[in-house]
Amino acid sequence: MYIGVDLGGTNISIGIVDNSGKIKFINTISTNSGQKSKNIIDSIINLINNTIKHSSIVKEDINSIGIGIPGIINQETGKIIECINLPLHDVPLAELVKKEVEIPVFIDNDATLAGLAEYEIGVMKNSTTSVLMTIGTGIGGGIIIDGKLQAGYNGIGSEIGHMIVGQNYYDCNCGRNGCLETFASARALVNYTKKLIKQGNIETSLHKMFSGETDRIDGKMIFEQAVKGDELANKAVNRMVKFLSIGIMNLISVIDPQVIALGGGISNAGDFFLEKVRTEVNNLKYFKTMPIGKIMIAKLGNEVGIIGAAMLGKYWLSK
Amino acid sequence: MYIGVDLGGTNISIGIVDNSGKIKFINTISTNSGQKSKNIIDSIINLINNTIKHSSIVKEDINSIGIGIPGIINQETGKIIECINLPLHDVPLAELVKKEVEIPVFIDNDATLAGLAEYEIGVMKNSTTSVLMTIGTGIGGGIIIDGKLQAGYNGIGSEIGHMIVGQNYYDCNCGRNGCLETFASARALVNYTKKLIKQGNIETSLHKMFSGETDRIDGKMIFEQAVKGDELANKAVNRMVKFLSIGIMNLISVIDPQVIALGGGISNAGDFFLEKVRTEVNNLKYFKTMPIGKIMIAKLGNEVGIIGAAMLGKYWLSK
Repeated sequence: MYIGVDLGGTNISIGIVDNSGKIKFINTISTNSGQKSKNIIDSIINLINNTIKHSSIVKEDINSIGIGIPGIINQETGKIIECINLPLHDVPLAELVKKEVEIPVFIDNDATLAGLAEYEIGVMKNSTTSVLMTIGTGIGGGIIIDGKLQAGYNGIGSEIGHMIVGQNYYDCNCGRNGCLETFASARALVNYTKKLIKQGNIETSLHKMFSGETDRIDGKMIFEQAVKGDELANKAVNRMVKFLSIGIMNLISVIDPQVIALGGGISNAGDFFLEKVRTEVNNLKYFKTMPIGKIMIAKLGNEVGIIGAAMLGKYWLSK
Repeated sequence: MYIGVDLGGTNISIGIVDNSGKIKFINTISTNSGQKSKNIIDSIINLINNTIKHSSIVKEDINSIGIGIPGIINQETGKIIECINLPLHDVPLAELVKKEVEIPVFIDNDATLAGLAEYEIGVMKNSTTSVLMTIGTGIGGGIIIDGKLQAGYNGIGSEIGHMIVGQNYYDCNCGRNGCLETFASARALVNYTKKLIKQGNIETSLHKMFSGETDRIDGKMIFEQAVKGDELANKAVNRMVKFLSIGIMNLISVIDPQVIALGGGISNAGDFFLEKVRTEVNNLKYFKTMPIGKIMIAKLGNEVGIIGAAMLGKYWLSK
């Protein structure tokens, strides 16, 4: 058995996962991200201890604990280097947790772990080179080459949402302009839709739905209206697809994966979205017969973070 | 001993290289790229046979032949898939050459092989993850991860000159707009300098040098005038540096190399250029303490193609 912890800005989720990636027990608490570093670390430790205590599994049967971090980490030292949305800077998390729970602890970036989960039991299984793009508020990446997690030399690799792909009308949270995630994330889709509604040149059912209160618009609604043929929603979706396809083609030009999996909230947009992306990437081929990898919707849904974190221990203990 | 063949649009160069990467014998003939596929293949075979015949090395001491191709190849089958500047499409080159010379033959992309050479005996030596960017007429790439050449699943990886990084005022040879090489190659530098001269808003010594005959301007001259403080030349160089740095930072965001080596014609621009690139990449960090790999000028100069091709046989025979 393996424990997987998915640390997010809103919630901390934990699961006990078996050797085949099946979740046997699951629990979630609030992160209280306004807290200090120490409180967040204590929450993680208490959650792990309580989970072991209240589950039917004896501690000796837990091989390892993996923790997914929404930030940049050092695989070797188990330290969190930087976390944009949580007050965790230069924190030796693996060591701190291990000291308290006395089970081997491994940490990695959450998108990288989602990639590991899709590689172990999802759509990237048995691929030699594959990339998971998690498309939600931002865009994260998990790259696996020859069965190896690719975090890069300094632990800052796989940050594919920060590839610069053009000039945009607003800056990225990272302080720069033109990052892929400012064009092609779910948040970017919502931002651009609101901008179009504000401009008021195109009639849209989205405007009527909320009598102009655009704050309640989310990615799901935009896709729903786009499928129904709404002109404005389609314009926004097509811009997102255009830049996401540039991002995918850039990954193809650099690492040429066998599988490119699209995960995160966007995976709910289904075939309507997938077909648009496949068509656009095809249009971006730079010679007609160019062979490219498969573009697929990721398989594992919301629990991918827990599964990937749990698989991390299995991954390292088998090395 | 290993034979390395560097097939270019203008010349075919061949070298006999020892185990440590030292060139023992070298020869060059014209490619006659206007010829048919068969004639180019025959030229390669004759050059290899003549080289062995006229060198002091007996054929039995040649372990292998490596051939660098300016195009997209399949490592496993030894086939050329596509070659933009030569009439070599879907050619089983390794097989054809091997049949005639009776020595094991391996082929790979020329930029990938330049990366291999820098990894074996140049600035990328002993690195876990490294990238060579060859910056000349276009921009090519050679990526080595954990000692392995990364050509990608379909043999189309490492084409880093075709990352889309913005919108440009002219299209790429590949038919698309915004490719890195249309902003940051030596040709892009020359194109943009000519554009600035034509606009005529900035005084420049480059204009005086040629009395307006801008066709004779090349990258070397632009760098020379930039070093001397010429405003227009500096404007053009700074634009090139800006986009090259975006390209480098995109590679960092995806594969986070330990070493990024800058090769090709641009390596002659030396410290003036290197310092500008390092400063600009630093400005593109998305958090202040972000650790990034070393950016260095490649070491091996013009013969990198022959050395890399020769090392290819050593690389595969040791697998």
